[in-house]
Amino acid sequence: VSRRTIMVVNPNTTVSMTDTVVAASRAVAAATTTVVGGTPARGVSAVESNLDEVWGAVCVTEQVAAGEQAGVDGYVIACFGDTGLAAARELARGPVVGMSEAALYAAAVAARFTIVTMPPRTREQSQRVLRHAGLEHRCTIRAIDEPVAAAASGSLHLLDEVAAQARAALHEDGAEAIVLGCAGLSDLLKPLHDLLGVPVIDGVLAGVTMVEGLLAMGLTTSRRATFATPERLGPR
Amino acid sequence: VSRRTIMVVNPNTTVSMTDTVVAASRAVAAATTTVVGGTPARGVSAVESNLDEVWGAVCVTEQVAAGEQAGVDGYVIACFGDTGLAAARELARGPVVGMSEAALYAAAVAARFTIVTMPPRTREQSQRVLRHAGLEHRCTIRAIDEPVAAAASGSLHLLDEVAAQARAALHEDGAEAIVLGCAGLSDLLKPLHDLLGVPVIDGVLAGVTMVEGLLAMGLTTSRRATFATPERLGPR
Amino acid sequence: VSRRTIMVVNPNTTVSMTDTVVAASRAVAAATTTVVGGTPARGVSAVESNLDEVWGAVCVTEQVAAGEQAGVDGYVIACFGDTGLAAARELARGPVVGMSEAALYAAAVAARFTIVTMPPRTREQSQRVLRHAGLEHRCTIRAIDEPVAAAASGSLHLLDEVAAQARAALHEDGAEAIVLGCAGLSDLLKPLHDLLGVPVIDGVLAGVTMVEGLLAMGLTTSRRATFATPERLGPR
Amino acid sequence: VSRRTIMVVNPNTTVSMTDTVVAASRAVAAATTTVVGGTPARGVSAVESNLDEVWGAVCVTEQVAAGEQAGVDGYVIACFGDTGLAAARELARGPVVGMSEAALYAAAVAARFTIVTMPPRTREQSQRVLRHAGLEHRCTIRAIDEPVAAAASGSLHLLDEVAAQARAALHEDGAEAIVLGCAGLSDLLKPLHDLLGVPVIDGVLAGVTMVEGLLAMGLTTSRRATFATPERLGPR
Amino acid sequence: VSRRTIMVVNPNTTVSMTDTVVAASRAVAAATTTVVGGTPARGVSAVESNLDEVWGAVCVTEQVAAGEQAGVDGYVIACFGDTGLAAARELARGPVVGMSEAALYAAAVAARFTIVTMPPRTREQSQRVLRHAGLEHRCTIRAIDEPVAAAASGSLHLLDEVAAQARAALHEDGAEAIVLGCAGLSDLLKPLHDLLGVPVIDGVLAGVTMVEGLLAMGLTTSRRATFATPERLGPR
Amino acid sequence: VSRRTIMVVNPNTTVSMTDTVVAASRAVAAATTTVVGGTPARGVSAVESNLDEVWGAVCVTEQVAAGEQAGVDGYVIACFGDTGLAAARELARGPVVGMSEAALYAAAVAARFTIVTMPPRTREQSQRVLRHAGLEHRCTIRAIDEPVAAAASGSLHLLDEVAAQARAALHEDGAEAIVLGCAGLSDLLKPLHDLLGVPVIDGVLAGVTMVEGLLAMGLTTSRRATFATPERLGPR
Repeated sequence: VSRRTIMVVNPNTTVSMTDTVVAASRAVAAATTTVVGGTPARGVSAVESNLDEVWGAVCVTEQVAAGEQAGVDGYVIACFGDTGLAAARELARGPVVGMSEAALYAAAVAARFTIVTMPPRTREQSQRVLRHAGLEHRCTIRAIDEPVAAAASGSLHLLDEVAAQARAALHEDGAEAIVLGCAGLSDLLKPLHDLLGVPVIDGVLAGVTMVEGLLAMGLTTSRRATFATPERLGPR
Repeated sequence: VSRRTIMVVNPNTTVSMTDTVVAASRAVAAATTTVVGGTPARGVSAVESNLDEVWGAVCVTEQVAAGEQAGVDGYVIACFGDTGLAAARELARGPVVGMSEAALYAAAVAARFTIVTMPPRTREQSQRVLRHAGLEHRCTIRAIDEPVAAAASGSLHLLDEVAAQARAALHEDGAEAIVLGCAGLSDLLKPLHDLLGVPVIDGVLAGVTMVEGLLAMGLTTSRRATFATPERLGPR
Repeated sequence: VSRRTIMVVNPNTTVSMTDTVVAASRAVAAATTTVVGGTPARGVSAVESNLDEVWGAVCVTEQVAAGEQAGVDGYVIACFGDTGLAAARELARGPVVGMSEAALYAAAVAARFTIVTMPPRTREQSQRVLRHAGLEHRCTIRAIDEPVAAAASGSLHLLDEVAAQARAALHEDGAEAIVLGCAGLSDLLKPLHDLLGVPVIDGVLAGVTMVEGLLAMGLTTSRRATFATPERLGPR
Repeated sequence: VSRRTIMVVNPNTTVSMTDTVVAASRAVAAATTTVVGGTPARGVSAVESNLDEVWGAVCVTEQVAAGEQAGVDGYVIACFGDTGLAAARELARGPVVGMSEAALYAAAVAARFTIVTMPPRTREQSQRVLRHAGLEHRCTIRAIDEPVAAAASGSLHLLDEVAAQARAALHEDGAEAIVLGCAGLSDLLKPLHDLLGVPVIDGVLAGVTMVEGLLAMGLTTSRRATFATPERLGPR
Repeated sequence: VSRRTIMVVNPNTTVSMTDTVVAASRAVAAATTTVVGGTPARGVSAVESNLDEVWGAVCVTEQVAAGEQAGVDGYVIACFGDTGLAAARELARGPVVGMSEAALYAAAVAARFTIVTMPPRTREQSQRVLRHAGLEHRCTIRAIDEPVAAAASGSLHLLDEVAAQARAALHEDGAEAIVLGCAGLSDLLKPLHDLLGVPVIDGVLAGVTMVEGLLAMGLTTSRRATFATPERLGPR
Repeated sequence: VSRRTIMVVNPNTTVSMTDTVVAASRAVAAATTTVVGGTPARGVSAVESNLDEVWGAVCVTEQVAAGEQAGVDGYVIACFGDTGLAAARELARGPVVGMSEAALYAAAVAARFTIVTMPPRTREQSQRVLRHAGLEHRCTIRAIDEPVAAAASGSLHLLDEVAAQARAALHEDGAEAIVLGCAGLSDLLKPLHDLLGVPVIDGVLAGVTMVEGLLAMGLTTSRRATFATPERLGPR
């Protein structure tokens, strides 16, 4: 098996978040996979508002363009909401996967599940992904009232808040698994699983293994219409 | 009634398209409405690919930011796919309406209808709006195989191609009205209606009247969560 | 701009309700619009039951037939549930809009919203409109336990009850705007907005501005199939 | 088993249609069931337009009110579109079933099926029933271009037209059964089945057996909310 | 009317459950119907897990094969979840109805309704039926935390638990009728109705009357594709 | 990284099919994965009818039970329709993935796609998976008219038939990728891709990489409710 490089693309400028998700990704990636991180030099420090998403998408496309120069084989977008995913697919030769869609597919280990995201204003961004994936009939969305910045240097201090929503999901929504709805929550994976005893899913990790799988199968984005190579590569 | 200024925001840099939609908008706007156009100084010349949409969204937010400085009362996004709509809503004090959603609402004059868009690669962008509006059970999407650039200086030469798809919609999809799926097709409004005898809907015009209505009712974007004022106004 | 006459059609015989909605409509209508009210001479005093809706629909068609004689340009059906809307579309030359559908479209100013209607038995009538509009994924329905008659001479005394349901909608359903689910609640528009700080939408006002918009665009009901001119104009 | 009387309610004034559906109903009803027909003295001669439906609903409620006086135990509404069904449920002590919903339930003998209705303008009325029943994912709608009046004295002369649509349904829509979309087509039941070799379903017959079943179980309309006894029994 | 034999097929080996549902079925069946019960000699004692469903389906097909030898005219599968229904349709000459689908159709007497099932792990089995029937927009599912075995010798001792969920359904879910979600709950039919005053529906009874109706109409399973006679009749 | 064993479970008795899918699986599996095949000693030679599925499910559970004894780490069910998946999840300690769901998730590389399955009678089995996965809005189903047995010793002779349906999918359904709807078609993967130039997806391969991913993340089936360990392990 030849070696493969996967870039975990952080749409925001917070390097500590990139470092965390890259480290977590390396722990699940195959021995033949090199995981690299991408952090934009200039952009927004977190993706919460719809305006943040506009700039996050710009940063994603810039990282992917750089990755293509560097010979990256596949990409994971490390932001719940999959900011910039469709454009990234047009730019990359190899497969691009969003952490949200990957998480929802990995959640097939449960009949029903719940996304716990943050802050509440991003619920519609989760909803948009859920609708595109078609899983509204099996998934609910809950949010804790904290800014993404609260998780910039780790999220263990948010365990109680996340666990409270997760427990409500299990008891009131019939959830049988929990999807972490923010790349910044990845260090809650084990503590939350230990607390609740149900599968807890981190979309970045799910995305890395999904890209590995697509690469192993030799599958990449269809160029037939929606994701055909774009005529223009940016503003003039 | 006090005077109102509505900006028709073109996400692409093609000034002739802005001019055309502004002229058409003035013909339907109330006497008390001033219609102004917005064209980005730097950006993409057309919005077709998903990558175009990323930059189109940036240009929309820049135009709206400028409009806010200039005291604009409401905005219509003049691009099928409603590029940048959610972010624009966060930035503007007054109402912001996308030409696609406005067209779909005006299509209530028919039980079923069809969007005729261009080029085929943009079908999923129409689909995304349709899904958000919830009208998939009453609307189909068809596309002519022409780039948006073909309509840069008017679209009368595309009448036959558009009419062929529209007729197929009436006969095969059960459509009872046609929605023009590109701001550049607005000069087909009358010829297509004359040819087909069913309502033909231009989303920019529908958007202008919808913004007028919202302004008359004193309604603007809810700030409660999804469209709350953003903490960050762009990249640093 | 030529002058336009819009009839606000009350399907029930309660003249005080017609007067209230006509007055409110005049406050939002353009200077070039004449708003007239229609009240049936004989019919039901309120539309609550499904049987009321049968007779309400008869009254709507009779009012519209009279309006056509009088040269009315467009119509708004002032009853949540849009009683008689499809038949009215067949009878009128100009556009006809239901207050419920118009309210749901104006609610585009929010990502999610809630209808607060009355009494509970009418919930399915709201549900029917919601399903036709396709907005079930973005809207919930709540009801206060009061008869429509309670709002015959104004609804300010119902503010607490409506506000309680609206608050529950904001906190439990994720609503970001409130749709008033009864023509009789229109005088709660301002007090409820002041109380909650989110958009509050009255469908009659939304309907009047929507008809103005359709008239400005020269759009009316498609005659192609569903709303073709009927062969029979009533019982023999 | 005590004897039961079921009224087959024709919403239109065409006595020959009532006679046909009553005769067909008697052939499937239990020995202990008396089938009576109801034809309005004054009304519309056919239910095609939405305006016809308004008057058809009035006639249905008048027939049901008369049936209640006469001690009728249950009702079938013999018009595709189930005109007046909700109001009839409020008026009748016993169960009321629409021919369309009953046909859709009997179509459970097939995985997928198609309604063949007439004329094309009534497609949306079938669509409305389909949406309420929730079976849009398993059913398509096709129409022949004939007025209901064409079937007033029997429909054998329409066999070729109906069979052509039914065959297209089997081959293009994946249908495995055919639902007759008009009470006037009931005499096609056997010829069409002989021709196509798939189940062909008549909603009036399905409705009669469904009412028999509900009566046997002692089930009738829920009075809890939607179909509670109405306060007003008609216009004043 | 010729006599008909309907087999009520119990997928589990608990004879007391078969006896109960057969006795209840005889009380609603027509005088011309003979109801027989089928209990597998070897199988699972209750159907709760998905693994139970695998073996329940085997038992259903064995009972139906035996019924075909014995000249049975139609079948009702007496297990919520309709275990083995599709295969049984392929094997039987006459109609086969699942108790869950039949219950959902009989629930047409209410605008909205709720299934109360047991134990919680079977909720997804109800969900699967609900999705196939298309009634998710009108039905919720609740469960009591008891094994099916708790109802093996009658369920009157479960009345309080079931009533608590049913009341929550009426008050919180807007239900207007209750569907008993387990064949073992049939003796709660009358007590629950007396307690709640809304229709309470037993799917086995609904299934028996539905099969009677299909037999009266001469309707049976379509052989066109999905339920064509299978090439293989079991393992070799 | 420790070594992992994944069993590809063939629900039918045709050993040549097991051999083919195991060989194909080994070509994509990681160097640290051992792929083993499972073929039932007694069962059906192909899974086409619903009755075949009943016995296929029994065989799946027997293979998984054997695999648990042998220390298998994860399972892929190699039959389009995912026969026995839910029961297998209850039995296995490790993750179990169906080839259909895995194929649909891998199809995320395209905006829209089409399943090409065989024979036509199995379309509803694909539909059932599609509905559970929620992807009906992005996927159509087509079938070639050949028995599964036709692919028992390879499917290259079916290339023309499959390609004809795939081309129709691209041109008429807007598909941008093709999902092979039968484990027996896996040798068409490369020829079909070469012919069409769009991604072609084999669910067994997608399933193997998905199980590898779940194992890498330490994720397995939720035991909370739907897939809790069953009380009974089979018939008595």
